[in-house]
Formats: sequence, structure tokens, C-alpha cells
Amino acid sequence: MGEIANIILIGSGNVATHIARVCKEKNINVLQVYSPHIENARALGEHFNIEALNDINNLNKSADLYIIAVKDDAIAELNQTLRIPDKIVVHTSGTSDIEALKDISGKTGVFYPLQTFTKNRPVVWQDIPLCIEGSDTETKELLVSFAKKFSGSVLEIDSQRRRKLHLSAVFANNFINFLLRESKDVLGSDLPFSILYPLVMETVKKAFEIGPENAQTGPALRGDQKTIEAHLKLLNDNPSAKELYTLFNSLISNPADR
Amino acid sequence: MGEIANIILIGSGNVATHIARVCKEKNINVLQVYSPHIENARALGEHFNIEALNDINNLNKSADLYIIAVKDDAIAELNQTLRIPDKIVVHTSGTSDIEALKDISGKTGVFYPLQTFTKNRPVVWQDIPLCIEGSDTETKELLVSFAKKFSGSVLEIDSQRRRKLHLSAVFANNFINFLLRESKDVLGSDLPFSILYPLVMETVKKAFEIGPENAQTGPALRGDQKTIEAHLKLLNDNPSAKELYTLFNSLISNPADR
Repeated sequence: MGEIANIILIGSGNVATHIARVCKEKNINVLQVYSPHIENARALGEHFNIEALNDINNLNKSADLYIIAVKDDAIAELNQTLRIPDKIVVHTSGTSDIEALKDISGKTGVFYPLQTFTKNRPVVWQDIPLCIEGSDTETKELLVSFAKKFSGSVLEIDSQRRRKLHLSAVFANNFINFLLRESKDVLGSDLPFSILYPLVMETVKKAFEIGPENAQTGPALRGDQKTIEAHLKLLNDNPSAKELYTLFNSLISNPADR
Repeated sequence: MGEIANIILIGSGNVATHIARVCKEKNINVLQVYSPHIENARALGEHFNIEALNDINNLNKSADLYIIAVKDDAIAELNQTLRIPDKIVVHTSGTSDIEALKDISGKTGVFYPLQTFTKNRPVVWQDIPLCIEGSDTETKELLVSFAKKFSGSVLEIDSQRRRKLHLSAVFANNFINFLLRESKDVLGSDLPFSILYPLVMETVKKAFEIGPENAQTGPALRGDQKTIEAHLKLLNDNPSAKELYTLFNSLISNPADR
């Protein structure tokens, strides 16, 4: 069994960019970066000194690994057109099945980093859970040892469990972010949003240390109707925050419904 | 103008305990701790070597500051019975008005630490925003300089702004914690909850760095109906998570409603 020594990136978005960055740091050879939009491929390629291309027919077929970091719909399109039968091909999606790549190659896999990426914000890859799946034992083992170059937290997770993980990440990332937007709106312009930072950090740390089921507090849990009524009055000019407040309160105060 | 050299704690819950701890560290003299339940007063008093009492008539009337750290309803009760006319009396509530103390003393104030406290979890007071209000300039100034012994982030905030701050803290603490409960439920028992920790930490840091209005991502924002339908199917056996998923998605995908 060999080792994955060089790769090709298909896609040039946030995930591809962060993978390119860590490959440079770890001396993993990235032969090419492909995007249907040549300017995007070039932006990434020039930054990390990688050949850029937008014609899939010019794809080098001799790399050890092809990482497809594109939207789910684009994975389905590639499955219809791209053929690299002998090489390992993976996607980076939380929701697409491993089967989504089955016509591209006989050796497929998933390389799903459980993190939110923004192009110019560095992240500590060492801490990111990397969820690996492989179509066969050899492919999986090659992917796991490749993934260990990126992260100290490499997990073998099948497509079904990955879908649940992705859904829980929607709550933990998308919805928490939206709650923070509402907090900021409610706070208004009188006070800086940063005033909430120590509270939110402690909220998260406590929930992970003692379990969120043991950390719930607040007026809804205590049944403090006087405070709840005062809050609803303050929310009269903010319908979305009021809807969220009402639903959270009803769920928090009725544990029997859960 | 003097200085607040010694205090009395009225209440023996989480907030009182954390105040007692920092007073010990900073050599601030706590003369007494009062609770209607003597065992609670004693538990705190013995830990920090403070006289404990449950008869309010035995309250020492010569302290510089009386900190009332009790529930909002109990503040109202104390306002009917407690009389310390010449001394500074504050409460620690996010929602009660400063006026809630007006019959106890002519010098009143608020000492509201914006943090979630758990008895045995130490917190870094230096970072906690301390929201101060005073009934008159001298009282306010004494309270501000007292508060600076606790925290590097002392803010003068009136009762109206404090109410808004408390409401936004309900979103940032109570509701985020509840979302984390739902994430954990959705994840199920196949995977450890800790797998989400790096994602949540990055979510929070990013929202505070670039603003949550610039950090929103996810299937609802992209209008990715295929993923949303798959998620709703996965949530069929979890009605509370499904309700939250549906409401968040509708709010995230309809910014015009905001």
C-alpha cells in the first residue's frame, strides 16, 4: 500500500482554499486546481503556486487523490462527466452520499472537515474533526493516513452518520449565528455587541463541560412570567426576534414536549 | 468622598457566592451574609469565613455597601421590609429597575455582572462587563470605583438599557444553550457531543470578529431545498428540533421580513 503524495483540487471556494493552505504548510504537492471559472482557479493557483485550469479535459490524470470541494449540485454534475477510474476521488460535503461519486471512479471517499470556513480567516486544522469514509478498506486507510497530516481528530464516519452530524452542525453553526444576529439587533446601537462576548464564550464552554441539558437557565425555565411579559413588550418592534423568543420559551418551559 | 471598604451580602445563591469569592481574593471585607434559609447562609459563610444570619433584624447596619443578590420577586419583598436609610444598597438584577430599592435607602444602585454563574465553576471577573447604575452622582462614583476592583470592563448603564441588555443576553445565553441541547439530541448517541466544540467556538469567534450579519451561511441562506428536505425527514422523530429548524430557516431565508 502506497501513500497519497500529490493531489488535485477540483473547486476553488473556501474549503479548497483552506485545503491548499494546509497542503503548502505540510509540503503536500498540489498539482492542479480546477474551476469552471478560470479567474477563480487562478486566484487560488497564484496564491499557492499551483497550476490553474478551467478545461476539465486538461486535468492531469496521474495524481494520487482528487479532492472535489464544490457545492452538492456540482458534485452530481461531475459524476456525469468526469472519469478517473483508477484514482481516489473524494468530496468534502456533509450531506452528499459517498455514492454521489460512483461513476467517476471505483475508489471513492469522503473528506469532510467539520468546520465553518471563511477565505481569509485562518483556522487551526489540528483541532478540526475530519470525517473520513472510503469505498473499500484500502482507500479508507489511505485517506485516514492522509487526513492525519491535517488533523489530530480523524474519524471514520459513514454517510448516514455524517448526514446527522451535518444537521446538528446546522443548529450549532447556522442557527447560533442567527441567534447572535438577533441578540445584536435587540441590543441596538446603544451598546457595543462585544459586551456579550464573555457571556457567549462561557455559555459555550459550560454547555460542553457540564452538558447543555444541565446548563439551562433563564426566565422561561423558572416560569418568571413578569420578566417574560416585559421582554415581549420590548420585542414589539422586532417580529423575528419575538417569534424566536416565543418558540424558545415554549420549548424550554415544556420539557415534557421533548 | 470615601471608599467602599466593607460590604454585606443579602442572598446566598450563585451570584452572591461568586461575589464572596472575588471579595476574598481582593481583600474586600464581607461582614455578613444573610439568607432566610440559615443552612444556605452558613454554607457560604463557612466557606469564606463570613458571619451567617437568617434574621434580618440582626443585620449589621454599619457596612458601606449592601449587595442584594436575590430573585426579582425577593427584591420587591425586601423593599417592603428592609430599612437602611443612610447606606448604599444595590441589587444585581438585569431586569429590576433601580427604583425597586427606593424604600430601603436613599442611596441605591445596580451592580449587574453580565455573566452566567454556576456555583462551582470559577469565572474570570476581570473580563465580565459590570453594569453600574447609581441613584446620585456620589453613589454612582463610589460604585464605579468599587466595581473596578472586580472587572476591567465597568460600564455605566441605566435601567432601560440594562433591560435591553438582559433581553439580548437571554438570546445569547439561554437560547444558545437550548440550541446546543437540540444539536446534541440530533447528533444522537453515535457520536460524542464534543465533536461540535471546534465548530461552535469558531462560529462564535467569527460572529464577534466580522459581525453575525456577515457570517450567515447554510442551506436556508443558499435556498438549498434538497438539503432542507433531507434535514426535515431526519427530524421527523424530534418535534422540538423540527419546529426550531422550520422557524430558523424561514427567518434566515426571508431577510425582507426582518
